[in-house]
This record gives sequence, structure tokens and C-alpha cells, in this order.
Amino acid sequence: MTATVQADSGPALRGYAKGRARRDAIIATAAEQFAEKGFLSATILEIAAACGISRAGLLHYFPDKESLLETVLEARDDEDQARFAPYIQSAGALGVLRGMVDLADHNRLVPGLIELFVRLSAEASSPGHPAHDYFASRYDRIRSGTERALRGAVRAGQVRSDLDSAAASVRLTALMDGLQAQWLLDRRIDMAAHLGAAIREWLTPQGLHLFDTLTIPQTIP
Amino acid sequence: MTATVQADSGPALRGYAKGRARRDAIIATAAEQFAEKGFLSATILEIAAACGISRAGLLHYFPDKESLLETVLEARDDEDQARFAPYIQSAGALGVLRGMVDLADHNRLVPGLIELFVRLSAEASSPGHPAHDYFASRYDRIRSGTERALRGAVRAGQVRSDLDSAAASVRLTALMDGLQAQWLLDRRIDMAAHLGAAIREWLTPQGLHLFDTLTIPQTIP
Repeated sequence: MTATVQADSGPALRGYAKGRARRDAIIATAAEQFAEKGFLSATILEIAAACGISRAGLLHYFPDKESLLETVLEARDDEDQARFAPYIQSAGALGVLRGMVDLADHNRLVPGLIELFVRLSAEASSPGHPAHDYFASRYDRIRSGTERALRGAVRAGQVRSDLDSAAASVRLTALMDGLQAQWLLDRRIDMAAHLGAAIREWLTPQGLHLFDTLTIPQTIP
Repeated sequence: MTATVQADSGPALRGYAKGRARRDAIIATAAEQFAEKGFLSATILEIAAACGISRAGLLHYFPDKESLLETVLEARDDEDQARFAPYIQSAGALGVLRGMVDLADHNRLVPGLIELFVRLSAEASSPGHPAHDYFASRYDRIRSGTERALRGAVRAGQVRSDLDSAAASVRLTALMDGLQAQWLLDRRIDMAAHLGAAIREWLTPQGLHLFDTLTIPQTIP
């Protein structure tokens, strides 16, 4: 009986799973091609070819290069957001700061994605670029999230009370980006260590102790 | 008589000056086009057209796109190096740190160049890119120059003696780059103020006083 049910629903499920897998493969390939050639130079035709499908086959999943880009960026953001959840649950505001350091360490494993973000963010500075608004609001989100974390840690006595949280959030965001740019050219740059050193300069003795002893149930990666 | 001499040497001199002016115009236009389209997407033909000359006319000055890029990058570096001279003369190691802040302020005036450097540095992370070696050694030079300045300022009692100068030079370089990336997307970011705030955190009271009262005979720009 079970076999019959499987035989009935199998092909449809397999079709769905196949479509899903193909869509994921297109997203991964597009991320690689955008990173390698830049968004403007990469073409739908080349991405399709690298996936082993036709241009029409790709356009069945994504109507144009812009929508493909949007999906690539959103997939990365969703993944990163998910990574922070256990840090926030374990240690609140200070957990976010520690999560940033662990994310910098995790980023070593995904050089293609880092290259994509560094290149695209630079390309997207032109207001006409399809990812301009995405990057502008992404920076707003990262800066305000960092500022909230710093303020929370100040309130908890973990970060020095004389720190200007708004200005420090701009600097911390800039540091993360700049470290990625250097690391792409020289893999000996230890992004996590440098980011951690910058954060440590702002911590109180109490904050420093918690920061270094924090155990996260489910760590990055 | 003077008129005759002018008439004799004039055309040759004018020809030289004209060639020099055209070469400078090509460099400026190339910098704009590289910034706008990225180095890989920009073409010799488009750069020539934007200068109002033929492709062959441009190739008379620069044999290929790579040599044009090299000249654009070197021109910027020479200019920046020259800016630091009066700072070093006035205040040695601490002058270099102050010069970095003033350079960040000056950079607001040349958004095209900043965009070019941010984009190219990201593009050039691929080892096959013609500017890869340039950017790798540029970072080495900037980091070691910054490290030397920090060490000198530590010796002079202007920077805290517990600062790890090598690590801090990586962070300061990263901060400068990251601030540029944010500023390109949001011109309200005050790059000089943020860079200055980061340096101030490392200064001793004596260093802080000198840093804030430093007068440079010939300032940027």
C-alpha cells in the first residue's frame, strides 16, 4: 500500500524537489558569476550555460538578472540573520557583538560570497544600479542593529558608558567591510581577530569577561 | 625679435603642451569611465570617444587598457604621497595620522576616484586581474606606513604604549576603506570625523593635545 502511495505521489514530489534543486543551483551559480565578473558584466546566458540549462530554462525561474540578484542577496541575508538568533538568545546585546566576530570567522569559508558583496556594494554606489537601494538599506539595517547592540551593552554595564554608540556602529560596520576588502587580497588577514580587538577596546572588565567566556549552543558555522 | 623666437619655438612647444594636455585628459576620462563601469567593462573605444579622439589616437598615448589603468593609479598615489610631506615635516609620526584624517576629508571632493578605488580593489581580488599586484602591494605599503607612524607616536609618548601597532594599522586601513564604501552609498557619513575618533581613542593626553592643535603650513587640499 505504502509503495502504491509513493508511486502515486512520487513523480510530482520528485518534480517539485527537482525544480527546487534547480532553482537553488541557479542561485548558487549566479552568486559565483556575479562575484567573478561583477553584476554588470555577468550575463543570463552565461549563468544558464554554467548551470547546464538554456536561457529560456533559466528565465522560467527568474524573469531577469535583477530578480536573480535580489534572490541571491536575500538568501545571504536570511542565512546571516538566522545565525544571530542563538547569540541573542544566549547573551542579548553582547551576544550580537560576539556573533559579529564569529560571522567574520565564518566568512573565511565563503570567499565567493564576500567577493560578491564587496564588488556589488562598490558597483551599487551609482544611484541607477539595481542593487543601490538594497545596499543603502542594508547598511542602515546593519548600522542600526549594531547601534542597538552597543546601547544595550552600555546599559548592561558591559560597554564603556562614554562610547558614542551611533558613531561606533558606523566604525564597526566600516571595519568589517574594510577587513573583507584586505582579506580578499591577502588571506592572512584574520578578520575575526581584528574585529574582536576593536570591540574589546570598548568593553568594561565585566563585559570583557562575558565576551570571552560566552558559550553559544549552536555556533557559526 | 622676441616675436620671431616665439614664432620659431612656439609650434613645437605648443605641440608638446597639447600632447601633454591630451594625455592628462585621457587619464582623467579613463579614471571616470573605470569608476563608472568598472575596469573590466570599460573599453578603450568608449574612453577614446569620451575624449573626442579615435581609438588609434588613444593608443598613440597608451598601448593598452592595462597601461592606462597603471597610469591612473600611479597618478593618484603620487598626489597622495605629496600631500603627506608637509604633515611629516610639521609633526612627524603624529603628522601622518593627522594627514590621514585630512585626506579622508579631501576625498569627499573626488567621489569618482574613490569609487574607482573601491570598485577596482574589489575587482582586483581575483589573482588574474591586471591590478591585483598593484592593490596587494598598495595595501602592504599603506599598512606598513601606518604601523611606522603608530610606532613613532608610541615612542614619542603620543599613542598609548599598550597598542599593538601592527594590528592597529590593519584596523585603521580597513576603517578608511569601509568608511569610503559607506560614504559612496550615503554622503552624510563623515569619513574624517569617524577616522579621527578612532585615532583619538589611541592617543595619550599629550598626543591628543598635539593632534588637535597641529597647524600644517600647506593643508589638504
